[in-house]
Amino acid sequence: MNERNPFALETTLSMLLENKKYASLRDVLSTMNPSDIAEVFEKMEPNTLPLLFRLLPKELAAETFVEMDSENQELLIRGFSDSELREVLDELYVDDAVDIVEEMPANVVQRILSAAAPDMRKDINNLLRYPEDSAGSIMTTEYVSLRTGMTVGDAITHIRRTGVDKETIYTCYVTSERTLIGTVSVKSLLLAQDDAVPVTDIMETNVISVFTQTDKEEVAQMFSKYNFLALPVVDAETRIVGIITFDDAMDVMESAATEDIEIMGGMTPSDKTYLKSSPVDLFKHRIPWLLLLMVSATFTGMILNVFEEKLQAVVVLTIFIPMLMDTGGNSGSQSSVTIIRALSLGEIEFPDILRVIWKEIRAAVLCGLVLSVACFGKIMLVDRLLMNNPAVTPIVGLAVCLTMVVTVCVAKIIGCTLPMIAKKLGFDPAVMASPFITTIVDAISLLVYFGIATALLHL
Amino acid sequence: MNERNPFALETTLSMLLENKKYASLRDVLSTMNPSDIAEVFEKMEPNTLPLLFRLLPKELAAETFVEMDSENQELLIRGFSDSELREVLDELYVDDAVDIVEEMPANVVQRILSAAAPDMRKDINNLLRYPEDSAGSIMTTEYVSLRTGMTVGDAITHIRRTGVDKETIYTCYVTSERTLIGTVSVKSLLLAQDDAVPVTDIMETNVISVFTQTDKEEVAQMFSKYNFLALPVVDAETRIVGIITFDDAMDVMESAATEDIEIMGGMTPSDKTYLKSSPVDLFKHRIPWLLLLMVSATFTGMILNVFEEKLQAVVVLTIFIPMLMDTGGNSGSQSSVTIIRALSLGEIEFPDILRVIWKEIRAAVLCGLVLSVACFGKIMLVDRLLMNNPAVTPIVGLAVCLTMVVTVCVAKIIGCTLPMIAKKLGFDPAVMASPFITTIVDAISLLVYFGIATALLHL
Repeated sequence: MNERNPFALETTLSMLLENKKYASLRDVLSTMNPSDIAEVFEKMEPNTLPLLFRLLPKELAAETFVEMDSENQELLIRGFSDSELREVLDELYVDDAVDIVEEMPANVVQRILSAAAPDMRKDINNLLRYPEDSAGSIMTTEYVSLRTGMTVGDAITHIRRTGVDKETIYTCYVTSERTLIGTVSVKSLLLAQDDAVPVTDIMETNVISVFTQTDKEEVAQMFSKYNFLALPVVDAETRIVGIITFDDAMDVMESAATEDIEIMGGMTPSDKTYLKSSPVDLFKHRIPWLLLLMVSATFTGMILNVFEEKLQAVVVLTIFIPMLMDTGGNSGSQSSVTIIRALSLGEIEFPDILRVIWKEIRAAVLCGLVLSVACFGKIMLVDRLLMNNPAVTPIVGLAVCLTMVVTVCVAKIIGCTLPMIAKKLGFDPAVMASPFITTIVDAISLLVYFGIATALLHL
Repeated sequence: MNERNPFALETTLSMLLENKKYASLRDVLSTMNPSDIAEVFEKMEPNTLPLLFRLLPKELAAETFVEMDSENQELLIRGFSDSELREVLDELYVDDAVDIVEEMPANVVQRILSAAAPDMRKDINNLLRYPEDSAGSIMTTEYVSLRTGMTVGDAITHIRRTGVDKETIYTCYVTSERTLIGTVSVKSLLLAQDDAVPVTDIMETNVISVFTQTDKEEVAQMFSKYNFLALPVVDAETRIVGIITFDDAMDVMESAATEDIEIMGGMTPSDKTYLKSSPVDLFKHRIPWLLLLMVSATFTGMILNVFEEKLQAVVVLTIFIPMLMDTGGNSGSQSSVTIIRALSLGEIEFPDILRVIWKEIRAAVLCGLVLSVACFGKIMLVDRLLMNNPAVTPIVGLAVCLTMVVTVCVAKIIGCTLPMIAKKLGFDPAVMASPFITTIVDAISLLVYFGIATALLHL
């Protein structure tokens, strides 16, 4: 009844298994939630899984199967007899079956498709055709469809007869020749005054739907906006072809946020969880950006190369380079991260770009002024007095502070503009996050610094 | 029937309003979804809102009210008569009413509480007592409660009689003296063979619940793991005190991800959307971290100060400082961002720390080796040949590349360790993201650089 820690169980299960207490094992597993069983299974010896899995009651077995990771799924399928495989498939919803098929190697896919009932095989094949990130790829075809002539009583009878195989019965779709004309919830069916009321009298006709090719992240945003339990998917002729349920939308939302965060951190996104990723996986997802960014840092090096003589004359300027570059980088990434997230959540669109830039400029001027005043104080106190470096003159401090104001402004403008332009051009705006912005801002801050220093110090 | 762009509507509405076409306005608004109406209202002149709102049918009005932002809610409440306010409140679910009350100034809260029905006032006051981030603060008390003695038929009758005021009827809670002993879904009630079956025969007794004080982000993770429609909230004596529905969990999930992203970007998190934030708001959320990070860059400055003489002797070393610092910063933030997200999603916990460090070390060595080989080539080709700088000797290149391997390893170890330690100590791990890591790694990379350069170049 409490929050459970399912991880203490793996030891118990192993011991029951060693002592061949199969009846007790079945009893223990039957009290558990499928997600928790799948989690414990991941901690067990792989060779015990087929036996453990066969101990589960049929329905629980299928629900657990869906929650397992694809490695364990493959291991089990390879061990299944044809009839065992058919039994599991019969209990699966089509969208879950498609998710599994997508992760399996070709020969396992062959076995799944030949074991599936003809109807399911057809549905799986249809759903596999939709592009990876589309609404079609995450929908299911198992929904409750009502006809326009039905009464509330008819509808309830229909649900009772066909509902067991549906992914959700709580939103039903009223269709006329496959065209979606309204939705009716089980709540309104149950609360209807009278069983003889026509379904069309109580249905919601203002139906919000998506197309099969709508991007799945857009679908997830609609769930979070409208709080729907399920959303119908229609084809170009507004004929209903499937539904998407809130749990799938939640998964999309979570993985979209993870993907954004990974890209913003300068990595190519990964499907695997951290503990499942090998060091080589981590390496592969990280090295492209590190190499690219290292090579782009060549520009900063070139700039320093060009100004090497001036640096030789006033080496003290070097002391402030890291601080200027970091502050510029941080200012820019604050703006880019904010804008990337707002774009992801649909809070801003490309036409807002001028409003955004104007807002960022004002915020940047405020930040730049406060920072440079603080910075001037710090330079005079720490670098001149505390570190006792007479080369740190007020003029040097002034050059640093002026550079800071300009850099912060430029960084914030670049930081807010690039993600919006990227989105407009069809790229993922998350690419324009901290690492990328930092590299650009580094080069700019150096140019500004040497420009201002040259003028003020007459180099 | 299609995906709608609700933004084209505001002009139509304004024109209908100007021409006093109230009947048509009501018709137009009645076809819309509450979330879309609220969105259009935000684009209308504030002084038109009271009139527009009064045109909405009662139930739609309440649903729209919930979706509006708090400024517009306050504006409407201030214009409501006592009886209008009471009408809206009567239609609200308690958890929505609490959300509204939490955003209002004290005098508006007073008005709301005195207008609410006594039962609702009591419920609101109870819910307001739970800490801000707890399960109690996002739950509602309006759930369907069934008694152990009921049959399926009794249960359906009970739902039909009381369901209209419940936030969800689809999961019902079977209690005995307020202790939660099972759940039963409307699906299993409807699909039950016979109305005379006792509810206790078909209920799910393996109930997963949370405590009132459970952190709401943990609750959201449970929704995403178990795919629940609703989750019961119990007190210390496992008596049910409320439920949390999936839509509230989705909101928590989304804002938790936004908060993580903001903190990782070096900002204090904000409740306001980007377009609602003023430049001063942006400034306030950004300046603390910028100041802190600027001041911590003092250490890098101090290190450069100490090594100023050596730099004076071999100014060419300066050229590679930005590249080394950026590569170190990027490597560190890759690790920290990955670990922070995995911690947020509950994929890893503190006891995994040694596995994590060992994995990061191996990935770091791979990255470091590839980077330094590429870097050596780049230095010899670009900096020595292309830029024609004879000071860039192979020994200098070697010093840079050795520094790179060491820096990448150190950066990755720090990047993965700090967030886990922060979480263990009860801080938000997201604080240990790119900006923070960059500052630490900057200082370390300089120390390593000067150490290696001193040894190799006999400075």
